[in-house]
Amino acid sequence: MSQFDLVIRGARCATASDIFVADIGIVDGRIHTLGQSIGPGRREIDAGGRWVLPGGVDSHLHVDQRQTSGGLTADTFTTGSIAGACGGTTTMIPFATQNRGQSLRWAIEEYHERAGGKTAIDYNFHLIIADPTTAALREELPGIIAGGCTSLKFFTVYDDVMLKDHQLLNAMAAASREGAMVMVHCENAAGVAWMTEQLLERNLHAPKYHPAARPAIIEQEAIYRMTAFAELTGVPLMVVHVSAGDSIGLIESARRRGVQVYAETCPQYIALDSTNLDRPGLEGAKAQCSPPPRWPGNEAAIWEGLENGFFDVFSSDHSPYRFDSSGKFPHGSDVPFNRISSGVPGVETRSPILFSEGVVKGRIDINRFVALNSTNAAKIYGLYPRKGTIAIGSDADLCIWDDQYETTIANSRLHHAVDYTPYEGMLIKGWPAMTILRGEVIAEYHSFCGRTDAGQFLPAEKRSRAKTPTPTEVELSNLGVSPLYG
Amino acid sequence: MSQFDLVIRGARCATASDIFVADIGIVDGRIHTLGQSIGPGRREIDAGGRWVLPGGVDSHLHVDQRQTSGGLTADTFTTGSIAGACGGTTTMIPFATQNRGQSLRWAIEEYHERAGGKTAIDYNFHLIIADPTTAALREELPGIIAGGCTSLKFFTVYDDVMLKDHQLLNAMAAASREGAMVMVHCENAAGVAWMTEQLLERNLHAPKYHPAARPAIIEQEAIYRMTAFAELTGVPLMVVHVSAGDSIGLIESARRRGVQVYAETCPQYIALDSTNLDRPGLEGAKAQCSPPPRWPGNEAAIWEGLENGFFDVFSSDHSPYRFDSSGKFPHGSDVPFNRISSGVPGVETRSPILFSEGVVKGRIDINRFVALNSTNAAKIYGLYPRKGTIAIGSDADLCIWDDQYETTIANSRLHHAVDYTPYEGMLIKGWPAMTILRGEVIAEYHSFCGRTDAGQFLPAEKRSRAKTPTPTEVELSNLGVSPLYG
Amino acid sequence: MSQFDLVIRGARCATASDIFVADIGIVDGRIHTLGQSIGPGRREIDAGGRWVLPGGVDSHLHVDQRQTSGGLTADTFTTGSIAGACGGTTTMIPFATQNRGQSLRWAIEEYHERAGGKTAIDYNFHLIIADPTTAALREELPGIIAGGCTSLKFFTVYDDVMLKDHQLLNAMAAASREGAMVMVHCENAAGVAWMTEQLLERNLHAPKYHPAARPAIIEQEAIYRMTAFAELTGVPLMVVHVSAGDSIGLIESARRRGVQVYAETCPQYIALDSTNLDRPGLEGAKAQCSPPPRWPGNEAAIWEGLENGFFDVFSSDHSPYRFDSSGKFPHGSDVPFNRISSGVPGVETRSPILFSEGVVKGRIDINRFVALNSTNAAKIYGLYPRKGTIAIGSDADLCIWDDQYETTIANSRLHHAVDYTPYEGMLIKGWPAMTILRGEVIAEYHSFCGRTDAGQFLPAEKRSRAKTPTPTEVELSNLGVSPLYG
Amino acid sequence: MSQFDLVIRGARCATASDIFVADIGIVDGRIHTLGQSIGPGRREIDAGGRWVLPGGVDSHLHVDQRQTSGGLTADTFTTGSIAGACGGTTTMIPFATQNRGQSLRWAIEEYHERAGGKTAIDYNFHLIIADPTTAALREELPGIIAGGCTSLKFFTVYDDVMLKDHQLLNAMAAASREGAMVMVHCENAAGVAWMTEQLLERNLHAPKYHPAARPAIIEQEAIYRMTAFAELTGVPLMVVHVSAGDSIGLIESARRRGVQVYAETCPQYIALDSTNLDRPGLEGAKAQCSPPPRWPGNEAAIWEGLENGFFDVFSSDHSPYRFDSSGKFPHGSDVPFNRISSGVPGVETRSPILFSEGVVKGRIDINRFVALNSTNAAKIYGLYPRKGTIAIGSDADLCIWDDQYETTIANSRLHHAVDYTPYEGMLIKGWPAMTILRGEVIAEYHSFCGRTDAGQFLPAEKRSRAKTPTPTEVELSNLGVSPLYG
Repeated sequence: MSQFDLVIRGARCATASDIFVADIGIVDGRIHTLGQSIGPGRREIDAGGRWVLPGGVDSHLHVDQRQTSGGLTADTFTTGSIAGACGGTTTMIPFATQNRGQSLRWAIEEYHERAGGKTAIDYNFHLIIADPTTAALREELPGIIAGGCTSLKFFTVYDDVMLKDHQLLNAMAAASREGAMVMVHCENAAGVAWMTEQLLERNLHAPKYHPAARPAIIEQEAIYRMTAFAELTGVPLMVVHVSAGDSIGLIESARRRGVQVYAETCPQYIALDSTNLDRPGLEGAKAQCSPPPRWPGNEAAIWEGLENGFFDVFSSDHSPYRFDSSGKFPHGSDVPFNRISSGVPGVETRSPILFSEGVVKGRIDINRFVALNSTNAAKIYGLYPRKGTIAIGSDADLCIWDDQYETTIANSRLHHAVDYTPYEGMLIKGWPAMTILRGEVIAEYHSFCGRTDAGQFLPAEKRSRAKTPTPTEVELSNLGVSPLYG
Repeated sequence: MSQFDLVIRGARCATASDIFVADIGIVDGRIHTLGQSIGPGRREIDAGGRWVLPGGVDSHLHVDQRQTSGGLTADTFTTGSIAGACGGTTTMIPFATQNRGQSLRWAIEEYHERAGGKTAIDYNFHLIIADPTTAALREELPGIIAGGCTSLKFFTVYDDVMLKDHQLLNAMAAASREGAMVMVHCENAAGVAWMTEQLLERNLHAPKYHPAARPAIIEQEAIYRMTAFAELTGVPLMVVHVSAGDSIGLIESARRRGVQVYAETCPQYIALDSTNLDRPGLEGAKAQCSPPPRWPGNEAAIWEGLENGFFDVFSSDHSPYRFDSSGKFPHGSDVPFNRISSGVPGVETRSPILFSEGVVKGRIDINRFVALNSTNAAKIYGLYPRKGTIAIGSDADLCIWDDQYETTIANSRLHHAVDYTPYEGMLIKGWPAMTILRGEVIAEYHSFCGRTDAGQFLPAEKRSRAKTPTPTEVELSNLGVSPLYG
Repeated sequence: MSQFDLVIRGARCATASDIFVADIGIVDGRIHTLGQSIGPGRREIDAGGRWVLPGGVDSHLHVDQRQTSGGLTADTFTTGSIAGACGGTTTMIPFATQNRGQSLRWAIEEYHERAGGKTAIDYNFHLIIADPTTAALREELPGIIAGGCTSLKFFTVYDDVMLKDHQLLNAMAAASREGAMVMVHCENAAGVAWMTEQLLERNLHAPKYHPAARPAIIEQEAIYRMTAFAELTGVPLMVVHVSAGDSIGLIESARRRGVQVYAETCPQYIALDSTNLDRPGLEGAKAQCSPPPRWPGNEAAIWEGLENGFFDVFSSDHSPYRFDSSGKFPHGSDVPFNRISSGVPGVETRSPILFSEGVVKGRIDINRFVALNSTNAAKIYGLYPRKGTIAIGSDADLCIWDDQYETTIANSRLHHAVDYTPYEGMLIKGWPAMTILRGEVIAEYHSFCGRTDAGQFLPAEKRSRAKTPTPTEVELSNLGVSPLYG
Repeated sequence: MSQFDLVIRGARCATASDIFVADIGIVDGRIHTLGQSIGPGRREIDAGGRWVLPGGVDSHLHVDQRQTSGGLTADTFTTGSIAGACGGTTTMIPFATQNRGQSLRWAIEEYHERAGGKTAIDYNFHLIIADPTTAALREELPGIIAGGCTSLKFFTVYDDVMLKDHQLLNAMAAASREGAMVMVHCENAAGVAWMTEQLLERNLHAPKYHPAARPAIIEQEAIYRMTAFAELTGVPLMVVHVSAGDSIGLIESARRRGVQVYAETCPQYIALDSTNLDRPGLEGAKAQCSPPPRWPGNEAAIWEGLENGFFDVFSSDHSPYRFDSSGKFPHGSDVPFNRISSGVPGVETRSPILFSEGVVKGRIDINRFVALNSTNAAKIYGLYPRKGTIAIGSDADLCIWDDQYETTIANSRLHHAVDYTPYEGMLIKGWPAMTILRGEVIAEYHSFCGRTDAGQFLPAEKRSRAKTPTPTEVELSNLGVSPLYG
């Protein structure tokens, strides 16, 4: 190579399995060469022995969603992606939402519209299906998957989007058949409603009662049910935002049965707990999300799952509700917890929290950080090897981490459109000194310096199914019946 | 006592914990005296050292139910109870069924009508609730419980009776509040429907595909959900007809969490397996019940659960469908498995199968037999100590077992109104030589010699709740919230 | 019966499974008749509706043992049995000890000598084998078992008695072959020695470090090893004095594998914890026993095991060391914890503690109390049905409990030869108002009124082996090899 | 770089986490550059899109060991390393053995002597300690660790090398203190002896009874004990050659407790089973190793453990006993199984078996293959990042795999000094087309073309301890005691 577009020198690189020191030569936005003392670049950056890690992949965030009820997510693709970039994230996978009565195609097209030319980092969409009609699943879904959206999101709770069991089975079977995977928000809707009703009858209205309305067993019920449906339909399943340590055993057990189940957790389940909801006035609402942060002590089990490889993905579930009537309080501020919008923002703080609390404090090693922050999500959601790692041919999405930089999280320095962060005041050690998207520097520390139209849509690959037979497959097979999907 | 009404001499008695040899002196239908060489009786029976055990308590059977769809249960209270008596059963707890739109009170009154004066053994009713309206739960239920029906039965499957999650929660909470317990038929309705649809699409119509439509995970999903709802509502739960060995761990796990869960299994899960459904023509339909008999080998786990105390109750789930258009084939005989009525008869063979396969073959000891056959059901369903044991003051419901008697099960010798038994040809060692109800001999071997109006309604006691706090209760308690029921 | 020797009227009786109200007619020291309004007795006692329960069976206690090293157990058979009687115990099974170099026969004969005519309650011996020579196992053991001692005790720790693995296997195989069962004290000797050495090197000498020298994993290692050896040799195994909640899962797991394992716990694991060892001066030594009382909170798991049927037996492990140089401090009082004799007294307080903390506080029901206090030990150790229950033909060993009696444990009112109790000051509700041995009243509340030579030796029955094959048996069987024992 | 020493073009590279296509530029035996179309090399090899994987790291093999009893391991460092090279292995970690009475230093020096200048691939030694005297542990061990041998191997079985519990604890504590890790051969010695004795008494002498003498519980007992000792001493533990699927749960459970336990399995536990020992005459002895291959079906659980990440390392446990009186039959050929040398050869077939049965048959993916075959062993044993991966700066130890090459294993084509292979006739798809050690081609398919003195000793790094506290550490900590090691 006579001259690289960019050379990063002296990079202490880490992948999900390796650590090595190299110069990184970038051409046409891709990693062209890794080596010692490689040739010159038109631009050169001296990493000076700092960690150079794959750019973050945030695979769960809500941007520019206009929900039929409840609050508005304040971030546009532009603001959300800028915030991500400043937190070291170079790929985001927010949702395209089908509302009831709408076609899937409309949803995808609409979100392409919202994102196209207005996004600072690369992106794909998960498709929320709220109305899995036969037409949608049979006629539209194949085209959507062919168009590069291969992960579907379902809800077991929330009136306006939740699917009933027969809808879930049909939609999961369609996903399985067509080569998609599914993500599910797992909480038992009737359980939440019943618990909420009991609490309200007793005049227990404050945000601190929100966790009481959704105890861990309500999450676990839905997890068990969804792993059962995944077993029946053969579809790969991502259990998003696992909040309770006791839920881990359920998923491990399903994995041992041969069900292909992935698990995600989020910053709010290690950096917040239920006491954060017990604050004067409405302050507690700043930590209100669903599933809720659990009792103090629960986070130890989540950390153990992050460390030992149980969790595949660490995402933000960024839910940018402003702390006003547009976001958190669409029904006014004098309402019980169940009428407050659930969700916390976090796209910009996701990676720094995991780096600071995990790597710097010695809870996880750098390879696990890379796996959780980037690689696994890229692999699971069909964007690998273009995204998620440092390897020849991969996109030059890189993050130079300053592991000596100490800061305190302050909403005033964040870039989302939300007027608070639940992590205000948290001490952080380590921050992305430089975020690089396909060879272009887009952020330095807290400053965005990229282009708001730089982001590209990333078509995701289809999923194939796992091979270990489940008990259901064995039972069918004993009767001479092939799997009932596919 | 100058003279007993009846003395049984030389009885080798067993209770759920003890074995002793005694004469049994009976007065006014109750056990008045147990002793060595007790005084004379107006009538005397020489047990000759044979086992004298508590009369059987069959706590799950369907008699005189007229379902809105599907087959008719051919047995009346008269024929069903005579069959029970000849199989050593002295107490039965069939169902009173509320159909949708009916009041609970009507159901109870109707079944009192059907049973009163027409039943050969003592009885209580479980109340099937298919329409848990607020009125039913708030206004009717307390009276029904006060009237002695304290166990409610819910279905998670079957269109005409199944309850949705919110109905289940409301009904379970009402049961918890009022002092009743609940039994649940656990299968995921949407799962069954979806699997059935897949099989029918592939033209897999024979009864042998019935188990394929309801694999174990479909049972397990509902078990997990119901234990979760029991945790939320604090109600004692009986999981009826557990069919799959793998389901045992789920229930054990709920018990460890402090949820009060009982477990029942039935003869069809130890004496039949899925190969019984794979017979020429429609013969397989004779073994078709739901949940289905499982794959060969599964019964070993069920036996282990019977032996080690996991199972509380061994009932018949007697479902007396005739093998004709009135019963098994209401939609004709040329239909796929899903249009055949599910259920097998077994009230008369229940105890002999457990005695022969369990006690005689050495799988369980005589105390476990008594516990499974009589004592536990009496305790759990509020009929103890009147029923279920041999003790001073208890009803003199006794069964003298001839453990040397060998026979082959033949429908021609059974007393139910059904024209087949799935156990035709099964070798049995051990049969009730004499069945005694409140001091009166009502059957000798295969002959009924009692009165068809001898049976009395047994009011059941209320339930109280267990004391170990569940994780949900702990979670609420940490927030200063008392349990949300009661 | 023209006249009973004794009639107890109005007894609210409980067995391991039943509750009934009856008069109890006693002839020749046995329960002759149970009934309503039975005939007259030469003596009559009015129980007045109080609980009348089977006399206690304390199956683990040390009496009149003269150890080659360490302290002396202060109680003789006389004082120990009087103390037992005053605490509601009518049968005790202390140890006969073979010292190294002695014959088994000598040990049994010696202990017959020590006990015969000097014991106030009935008794059997477990035989501690410290020197399992071939001669002992082949030539002596069969005669000893034929003579009615069918339970052997082995130690995995303590220099003067511990057996090495090959000795354990040989002795367990011999027990299996000859029809005995084995009890094992489970702690890893090398682990204890190593931990102790580490602590002493750090000058951590106080009794409070005793639990640190024997953490739960040291108990668990030996439990796992002993269940493995029981699997190899096919012998029924009693794990005595299970102290740690985490040990429960190990034993449950062995049971699921088909290994016949029983479990015992003791008052010191529910009524004491490690903080009791952390007292000024040597006071902590009063709670020093091995395995040690565990950390606060551990007792909840022990209670759960008592309630749910995990534990079979609740014994005292009565170790009557006086708090002086004869007992606790044979090497002086200025010594580290490892030179203090381990063991706490408790034969008299065993049943009252379980009754008060268990039954009165609602943690266990009366049937579980009877099972733990009497029935299970009698069954497991071959004394049933003569001992352990209230049934026709059983010995009239009965205890009338005053469940309204409130007292505070004070050593001054106890009858053992020890000068302290670790439970001094504990509030107790419920005490045996009257203890009856074979129809004779031997104690009323805290007063002994029996004869010190009334106790009889109870020959125990042989054990048979369980039937469920273990994995080892299956593995051998697959190779065409029969079990290697028997 | 003006010119690389070697360039491999068109390499489809895989690491433990990544896949990428690159040219590999090698300078001074190390990977200097990875890139697209990199500059010229003095030598160039066209991989043509084939898999280029890290050279194999075989971390468990016996070479040039002269045991005090039993057979001789026929391979010298020369023959063993040539065989390894032809099977794609570029690093081996055989054992240096301390015999009783010898110093550790002698053992290390002796093996340096045996290996130095006579080994074709790079190597380190694990140090077998058979005589852990205080002098050895205190005075010698630190120097040995400083000299680059940081893994110690202990035996719980075999008279001439086994350690007793107190020796194990002392040696494990020394390892923990000094920064070494330990590997343990886990079988209960007394259990093996007792089972063997029982079998021999029954005249069951054939090799097929070898597995019966060492059932899975005998492995599991020692595993449990060693994880307990690792918990007490805080040392990282490798459980070598895990053979039974049921052992997996034990190790998982220890990991969940915070004990740092690694697990290894070997080809003989997936490609052989107990039926291989059941062959006419002495043929069965060709598959005799310890622990033994298990019953057919067991291998499925081992595969699941390989696939799901449970197993860290896949090694050969190469034990090159010739099938004659020098090796397998030192006591003659007319002897019972227990006098036949246990062990099978496999250094050359290890990687091809895992590739063919694992990758080609779709049981594991290519990243898992690399992790199991190379990366994990290099990391665990302190040779990473020099060995075990493809990364800038790592040694250019590479293997070009021909995944289309089909062959049948024949001893005639293997390079070890043994006259048989237990895999004779096994069909294999995939073989190393070219093996490269530090940039030099040392083998092509079945031909060695390197130098027998090319191998270098690799000093291993020290180990640090894990951070999650174990229950023992928590228990100590509650008493204010720091961990007792270190």
